Amino acid sequence: MKKWIYSFGDGKADGDSTMRHLLGGKGANLAEMSSIGLPVPPGFTVTTEVCTWYYDHDQQYPPELAEQVRSAIAGIETIVGDRFGDRHRPLLVSVRSGARASMPGMMDTVLNLGLNDQTVVGLAAASGNERFAWDSYRRFIQMFGDVVLEVDHYEFEHELEQMKGERGFDLDTDLEADDLRQLVDRYKQVVETATGSPFPQDPQDQLWAAIGAVFGSWMNTRAITYRRLHDIPAEWGTAVNVQAMVFGNMGEDCATGVAFTRDPSTGENSFFGEFLVNAQGEDVVAGIRTPQNLTVNGRANHGPDLPSMEETMPTVFQELNRVRDVLERHYHDMQDIEFTVQRGKLWMLQTRNGKRSVQAALRIAVDLVADGILDQAGALAGLDPAQLDQLLHPTLDPSAEVTIFGHGLAASPGAATGVVVFSADDAVARADSGDTVILVRSETSPEDIHGMHAAAGILTTRGGATSHAAVVARGMGRPCVCGAGDIRVDYESGEMSCANMTVRAGDKITIDGASGRVMLGAVPLIQTELSGDFAKIMSWADSIRRMQVRTNAETPADARTAREFGAEGIGLCRTEHMFFDEDRIVAMREMILADDETGRRTALDKLLPMQRQDFIDLFDIMAGLPVTIRLLDPPLHEFLPRGEEELAGVADAAGVTVAEVRRRAQRLDESNPMLGHRGCRLAITFPEICEMQARAIFEAAAAVQDKKGAAVMPEIMIPLAFSKDEIARLKSVIDQVAKEVAARIGRQTDYLVGTMIELPRAALLAGEIAEEAAFFSFGTNDLTQTTFGLSRDDAGNFLDAYIDHGILAKDPFVSLDFDGVGELVEMASDRGRASRSDIKLGICGEHGGDPSSIRFCEKIGLDYVSCSPFRVPIARLAAAQASLQSKSTRHAV
Amino acid sequence: MKKWIYSFGDGKADGDSTMRHLLGGKGANLAEMSSIGLPVPPGFTVTTEVCTWYYDHDQQYPPELAEQVRSAIAGIETIVGDRFGDRHRPLLVSVRSGARASMPGMMDTVLNLGLNDQTVVGLAAASGNERFAWDSYRRFIQMFGDVVLEVDHYEFEHELEQMKGERGFDLDTDLEADDLRQLVDRYKQVVETATGSPFPQDPQDQLWAAIGAVFGSWMNTRAITYRRLHDIPAEWGTAVNVQAMVFGNMGEDCATGVAFTRDPSTGENSFFGEFLVNAQGEDVVAGIRTPQNLTVNGRANHGPDLPSMEETMPTVFQELNRVRDVLERHYHDMQDIEFTVQRGKLWMLQTRNGKRSVQAALRIAVDLVADGILDQAGALAGLDPAQLDQLLHPTLDPSAEVTIFGHGLAASPGAATGVVVFSADDAVARADSGDTVILVRSETSPEDIHGMHAAAGILTTRGGATSHAAVVARGMGRPCVCGAGDIRVDYESGEMSCANMTVRAGDKITIDGASGRVMLGAVPLIQTELSGDFAKIMSWADSIRRMQVRTNAETPADARTAREFGAEGIGLCRTEHMFFDEDRIVAMREMILADDETGRRTALDKLLPMQRQDFIDLFDIMAGLPVTIRLLDPPLHEFLPRGEEELAGVADAAGVTVAEVRRRAQRLDESNPMLGHRGCRLAITFPEICEMQARAIFEAAAAVQDKKGAAVMPEIMIPLAFSKDEIARLKSVIDQVAKEVAARIGRQTDYLVGTMIELPRAALLAGEIAEEAAFFSFGTNDLTQTTFGLSRDDAGNFLDAYIDHGILAKDPFVSLDFDGVGELVEMASDRGRASRSDIKLGICGEHGGDPSSIRFCEKIGLDYVSCSPFRVPIARLAAAQASLQSKSTRHAV
Repeated sequence: MKKWIYSFGDGKADGDSTMRHLLGGKGANLAEMSSIGLPVPPGFTVTTEVCTWYYDHDQQYPPELAEQVRSAIAGIETIVGDRFGDRHRPLLVSVRSGARASMPGMMDTVLNLGLNDQTVVGLAAASGNERFAWDSYRRFIQMFGDVVLEVDHYEFEHELEQMKGERGFDLDTDLEADDLRQLVDRYKQVVETATGSPFPQDPQDQLWAAIGAVFGSWMNTRAITYRRLHDIPAEWGTAVNVQAMVFGNMGEDCATGVAFTRDPSTGENSFFGEFLVNAQGEDVVAGIRTPQNLTVNGRANHGPDLPSMEETMPTVFQELNRVRDVLERHYHDMQDIEFTVQRGKLWMLQTRNGKRSVQAALRIAVDLVADGILDQAGALAGLDPAQLDQLLHPTLDPSAEVTIFGHGLAASPGAATGVVVFSADDAVARADSGDTVILVRSETSPEDIHGMHAAAGILTTRGGATSHAAVVARGMGRPCVCGAGDIRVDYESGEMSCANMTVRAGDKITIDGASGRVMLGAVPLIQTELSGDFAKIMSWADSIRRMQVRTNAETPADARTAREFGAEGIGLCRTEHMFFDEDRIVAMREMILADDETGRRTALDKLLPMQRQDFIDLFDIMAGLPVTIRLLDPPLHEFLPRGEEELAGVADAAGVTVAEVRRRAQRLDESNPMLGHRGCRLAITFPEICEMQARAIFEAAAAVQDKKGAAVMPEIMIPLAFSKDEIARLKSVIDQVAKEVAARIGRQTDYLVGTMIELPRAALLAGEIAEEAAFFSFGTNDLTQTTFGLSRDDAGNFLDAYIDHGILAKDPFVSLDFDGVGELVEMASDRGRASRSDIKLGICGEHGGDPSSIRFCEKIGLDYVSCSPFRVPIARLAAAQASLQSKSTRHAV
Repeated sequence: MKKWIYSFGDGKADGDSTMRHLLGGKGANLAEMSSIGLPVPPGFTVTTEVCTWYYDHDQQYPPELAEQVRSAIAGIETIVGDRFGDRHRPLLVSVRSGARASMPGMMDTVLNLGLNDQTVVGLAAASGNERFAWDSYRRFIQMFGDVVLEVDHYEFEHELEQMKGERGFDLDTDLEADDLRQLVDRYKQVVETATGSPFPQDPQDQLWAAIGAVFGSWMNTRAITYRRLHDIPAEWGTAVNVQAMVFGNMGEDCATGVAFTRDPSTGENSFFGEFLVNAQGEDVVAGIRTPQNLTVNGRANHGPDLPSMEETMPTVFQELNRVRDVLERHYHDMQDIEFTVQRGKLWMLQTRNGKRSVQAALRIAVDLVADGILDQAGALAGLDPAQLDQLLHPTLDPSAEVTIFGHGLAASPGAATGVVVFSADDAVARADSGDTVILVRSETSPEDIHGMHAAAGILTTRGGATSHAAVVARGMGRPCVCGAGDIRVDYESGEMSCANMTVRAGDKITIDGASGRVMLGAVPLIQTELSGDFAKIMSWADSIRRMQVRTNAETPADARTAREFGAEGIGLCRTEHMFFDEDRIVAMREMILADDETGRRTALDKLLPMQRQDFIDLFDIMAGLPVTIRLLDPPLHEFLPRGEEELAGVADAAGVTVAEVRRRAQRLDESNPMLGHRGCRLAITFPEICEMQARAIFEAAAAVQDKKGAAVMPEIMIPLAFSKDEIARLKSVIDQVAKEVAARIGRQTDYLVGTMIELPRAALLAGEIAEEAAFFSFGTNDLTQTTFGLSRDDAGNFLDAYIDHGILAKDPFVSLDFDGVGELVEMASDRGRASRSDIKLGICGEHGGDPSSIRFCEKIGLDYVSCSPFRVPIARLAAAQASLQSKSTRHAV
C-alpha cells in the first residue's frame, strides 16, 4: 500500500530532512528534529504526492488516505495520552501547510483543531484553566472560520473589538473566561450567518476540511503570485502537517516565539529572536503585540525595553540556546526557528534555513567557514547570487542633511527614495508610469506582494523584524523600515502624519532600511561600500568558476564600475548607444538621412573622431582585456528626429530643407523594425558605416598601444547575421580597413571578427558561419524574440496571462528558455565548435546576468557570460556555483 | 593532367549530352550531335570548371589551359584544313558562351574571330568572294568591339548608317566590297578612339580576349538578373565554345536560320522556323531583317509572303527535316535548333530543348507519349510547373467589341490589358505603384528584362517570333505581340501611332498574344478554357503524385475555383479575411475595441451568424473534403478604424464616444505587430473569440450534414503557438464547445485540432506539441520571418542588395530556404512523427505553390501542400515530378 503519511515524534520519525520534495520543508525538518532528539510535538505529514494526486483527480483524495490518517492520529494519541475528540482529555492539533520551498505567509494554518462545545469543557478541566480553554476555542473558530470556511476575518475582529468596547477593555488579555465564552457564541453566530450552517462540531470533519483548505490554498492567487516571483513550479505541491498542539497561551509560564540563530540583517553571530508571553505563535508573526527580545543584548540593540527571555526564563533560554547550536551544526547553516514554551517546557515547532540580508549572508558564510562548519564550496553553494543585487543598492550619503519624519525598525538594508503610495495597486500603477515609489502600509499582507515588488522601498507602522513586511522585503531585496509606530497612516485622506508633520500620497520621502529612519524629501544616496566578506566570497568564487565574466558597457563610467566589480573584459559594447549624446545625434541623423553614399560619408567623417575617442577610453580602462565591439545594430529610425526643432537641426547640418528631412525620415519607417533594416543589414547596404567603425577601432587601438605599450584586444562583432556570407563580406571590409590603418600608422593590431548569434537561422547555420566567425556571442534577447515570435516591447499585453496560466514558467526575457532558445544555443555551440574547434563562445543578452541562465551556459560549456556592470558580482558567484554543480562537489564538511 | 578542354567534330566527340554541368548546354549538345553523325563544324569546349577556377583565382586561368587550347585549335585545323592566323587559308572561329541552363541573349558571342588586315585578304582569295570577306571582317570588328572591348555598339551602327546614307543605300546588302573595306577602316578608327589602342591584329590575342569576355559576361548585371529570375546558381559557371566558322553569308546559296521542331506556340507537330539568305546567324535572332519561313505551311500561317526554304532550297530542306526527326527521337523532346547553310551544305550549330508556350508544352508532351517517344513519367518530368501559370491567364472575351489599333506577330499566348509604358524603368515604376502595364518597345534587349518581368504584356514593333522579346516573353509567361511594324513608337514624345490613331504613355491598351492584335482601351478578358491536353497531363500527374494538394481559400469563389483546379480540400482558411467586408468590419472593430469580456461577447454574438454562414458555404463546396480553419490570427490593429467616419461607426455600434474608441484603438498600437498580440495569443487572452469561432464551425458542420447527409471534416488550426500548453488550453475550449453544440443539436461532428508550425520554438518543441496537436501545417511565411529575423513588409530596403551580392540565392519568401527554415521544417516533422506516428503534415505558406519548395516537401514526406487556387495545377504537377524524382524513375522509353 502506498505510503501517503509520514509520522514523527518521541525521538523518532519516518522521514528526514532530505525528503523535502515529499514532506515539504516544514515536514522534513520536523522529522529531522525529532530524529536527532529535539523536543518536537508528535504529528504526521500528509505528503506532497497527495496534493498532486488531489489536483490530478478532480480534488479527490487517494482511497487509502483516510485509514492512514486514522492510524497516524492514533499514534499521536499514544504518545500524548490525549484522544482526538475525547470530551475529557481532548487531543488538539494544528494543521499547517508545508511546501518544498519556504513560502512565508502564503499558505494557511489552523491551530487548536479538535475543539468543540464538549471538548472545550474537557480542555478547561484538564488544563485547570478555563480562560485558556475558551480563548483557544475562540481562536480556533476565528482561524477555521477565516481559512477554511472563508468567512471575512474582519467579522471576527469586529465582534472582538465590540466586546472589548462593551467591557471597557484595551487588551485581548483583559477578557475573562466568561467574556470569551460569550465571544465564542457570537463567533459561532458569525459563522452560521456567513455560511448558512452551524460551526462544525465533529473533530474529524474539522480535520478533513482543514486539510482540504491547505491543498486549496496551494492554488490561491497569492500562492500563485509568490511561486511566480520565486520560480517555484506548481507541480511541486504542498504537504500538510498535522501536529499535536502545545500551548504558549496557558499562562505566564508559557510563551511562543521565533528566532534566527544569527542576526539576519548583519550576520553577526548572536542569537536574534522575539517571543510573547502567554500567546500563540500567530500573535508573533502577525505583529499585533510588540514582542520581547530573547537576549539582553538584543534588547539593548533592537528595543523595545521589555525584559528578555534570557532574564525572565533563564532555564528555557539555556535550553533554546543549546538547540540553536545543535541545529546550526546539524544543518551547516543559520536557522530560522519557531518554538513554544508550555508551562516551562520548550517545544520546537519549526526549523529552516533562515532568510537573511545579503550582508548577513556573506558574513555568515565567511564565519561558518572560519568555524569549520562549512567549506568554501559549501559556503558558495548556499548563497543566492540574485541577492547580491542588494549590495549594489545605494545607501544614504552620510554627509547629507536630513529631516527626520519618523523612526521604525531597520528591517531590510539599503536606502530608497521615492514618492509615497498607500496601496499596492497604486504602487504598481505609479511604478508602471515610471515613478520610483515607497509603499507605506500600517502592515502588509500577502495581498500586497505585487505592490511590494513594484516599490523601491517599504515602510510599515506595525510589526517587528520578523513581520510579513520585513521577511518579504528582505527576500526581495527591498529596503524596509518596519513598525514605525509613531507614524499614523490615514488611507482615507491619503496621508500620513508624525508629530506635526504630514506627508501626502505623491510626496517624496527617503527610508533607510539600515537605521530605520524615515526622512522627508529625496536624500542623496551613495553606493554601498563592499565589505571584506564580499571580497572574500568573490575571491572564492573566482578560484572555483570556469567561465569568464565580462560586462556589457559602452560608457567609461560603466566600464570602470564593471572593472571594479571584477569584469574580465567587455562582452558587448553597443556602439549605437554612443550616438545618443546631444552633440552626436545630429551627425548621426545626418548620416542616416543622407540620400547617397557621399552624404553618408560626409556625416560619417564627423562621427569618426567621436567614435575613435570612445574606443580609446574603453581600451584604456580595459587595459588589455578583450573588448567586444558590436557594429551599429538598431533600426535607424530609433535615431530619427521627431519634433520640428530636431528636424531643423538635421536640415541645417545636412544643408537640405526640413521638408526633405521629413521625407527621408518617412522613408525609414518600418512595420516591424525589430525584423527590419538593422544589424549587419545596415553595413551590407552601407559598407561605409562599417568602414568608419573599423577605422575608429583600429586607430584607437593604435593610439592606446602607443600610449601604454600595452596590448589592445578588440573583438569586432557583426550583429544580426543569418549567413556566413554576411560575415565574409563585412570581414573583408574590416580586414581592408585594418590593413589600410596599419600601413598608414605603421602599427598592427591583433583583432578578431565574430558574430552575434541572435537569429534562429544563425544558430542552425552556425557550422558554416563559424568558418568565417572567430567567436559567437549569443544575443539571447533577440534570439528569444525570434524563437518565440515575441516582441519584448509588445509582450506586456499577454505575457502575464501566459505566466498566470502556466503556459510560460517565467518571463523568457529574464530567464533563458532552455527548451527552445536553449536548444538553439546548444546546437549553435556544438556546430560552431565542430567547424572551428577553438571558437570563443559567450552570451551577452540580459540572460548573461541571470543565475539559472548562467547554469545553463556552464552546462553547455560557454567560455564567458557578459552582463550589465551591476550584475557582474552576481554572475561571478553564479558561475562559481554552476562550476560546483557541474562537478557535483559535496558541499558540507 | 586535368582536362579543361573537350573537342568535337568529324563524327566524334570527347563529351556527350549528359555533361551539361561541365560543357554547358550548347557544348554538350554540339558534342552529342557530332557523336551521332550530324554535320557539326569542328570545335572544342572550355569547361565550366575553368570558369569556376577563373573566379576562384582572381580571374586567372589554370596554367595547363594555354597548351590545351593550342592543341585543340590544331585539332580543328586538321579537320578543316585551314590554319588559325594563316594569311592564305585562315581558319576563323566563333566564340560563344554556353551555360548549363539555356540563357538566351544573356551571354555574348563573337563570330569570325581570326580575321585581321592580312587574313581578310586570304579569306577573300580562298572564298573567291571579296565582299563576303570584308563583310565578315566588319562584322567581326563590330561584335568584338562591342562585346570584348566594350565599345558602344551605337558607334558602329552610326558609321554603318552614315555610309549607307552617303551611298544612298537602304540595305546593308547594298554595300559593296569596297564600301565594306572603307567601313572596316572607320570601324577600326572607332575602336582606336574609344579604347586608345588599335584593333588587335593577333588572332591568339583575339581568342584569349574573347574567352575572357565570355567569362566576364557571366558576372554582368544582365546575367545576374537572369539567373536570379530563373533560379540559376552563380557557382555553375559558363563554358566557352570555340568552333570553326561556317558561313551563311557567302552568297545566295548560303543561309542561316533557327527553327523549332514543332510549333512552340501551339505545340502542333509541324516544322517551325525562319531563315535568312546570305546572312549570319545574329541577323535572324536580332530581328533586324524580316526572315522567311522554312515551310510552305508556315509561310501560309505566319507570313510574311516570302518564299519558303521548302520551295527555294528543297534539298537542304529535306536534309534539315531529316535532322529534325533524328534530333527529336534522340532527345525525346521538341528541339530548338540553329543551322547555317554554306554553299548548299547544311551545318548544325546548336540544338537544345525548345522553349514553348504552356499550351504547346502540354500538347507536345501528350503527342510525344502518343508517338511512343516518351512515357508518361518522362512527359511529366519535362514540363515546367511554373509555366502552367500562363494557362490561368485570361484571354479576350470573344463577344467583346474591340477597336483595333494595330497588328503584329502572335508571339506569346494570353491577353493582357494595361497602361502603356515606353521604358523598362517606367514599367517597373508603374507596376510598383500598383498599375498593370504593357511595355511597348521597338525591340527589346537584355537590358529590358526587369521591365518585361514587371509588365503584364509586351508589344514590339520589330522582330519575329524568335526575337528577344518573343523568346523571353514566352519564358516568363507574358502575353506578347511582336514586330507590329505598322505601329510607330516615338519615345521622345511618349506616344505611339498607327494610321490616324495615337496612344500616349499612360493610356490603356489590350494586346492578344494569341492573335497578334493590339486594341485600344481595356477589352474584357475571360479565363482560358483548359484543354484536353491539360486534363490528360493533370490526370497523369494525379496518378503519380503521393502528396495531396489543398488550397488556401476563404471565399466561396476561391474555393470553387480551387475545386475546379483539382484542390483536394482547404489547407488554410484565414478566418480574419472573412471580416473585412463592409457589413462585418464594424462588428469586428466593436469586438476588438471592447473594454471587457461582456463587450467582446456582445460583438462576437453579432459575428457568429456571419461566420457560421461562411463555414456552411465552404463545407458545402468542399463536400466532405478536409477544411482546415485557422482561428483568428492577425494583429488586431489591422482592423482598427482609421478615419473619423470609421471611428464614428464603431462608436455608434458599441455605444461609446468617439474619443473612447480612439483611446482604445491607441492601446492596441504595437511596435512590432508581427511579433505581438496575435495568433493564438488572442484566444489565450480572450477565449471567447475561440469559443465563437468553434461554435460557428460546429453549427455550420451540423447544418451541412443535415442538408447533405455528407460528412464534413473540419480541421481546426491554432496559429502562432510556441508551446504544447497553448494547444492544450484552446483545445479544451474547442472540445467544450463541440460537446455543447453536439448536445444542443444532437449531432456529433468529427474534427481535428492541430496547429500551424510557424515559429522556431514550435518547430523545436514539435515533439511535445504533437502530443496535443493532431496535425501540423507549416506556416512558412511566418517561419521564414522569424527564422531570418526578417519582416516581409520591410525587407524591400535590403533584400535586393542581399540577392545581388549573392548572400541570398533567392527571395526566401518565394522559395523555401532549405538550409535554415527547411531544417526547422524537417526537424519538426521528425519530432512530430516520433511522438504521434499518424500526425498529418502539410504546408500552407506561399511556398506551398512553389515547385522547388514542393520538391522539398516531398523529400521530407509531408502529406499535403496547400496553395492559392490558381497555383493548384502547378502544385499537382510539381508534386508528381517530386514523386518521380524521389523514386528516381527513368523517364525516357
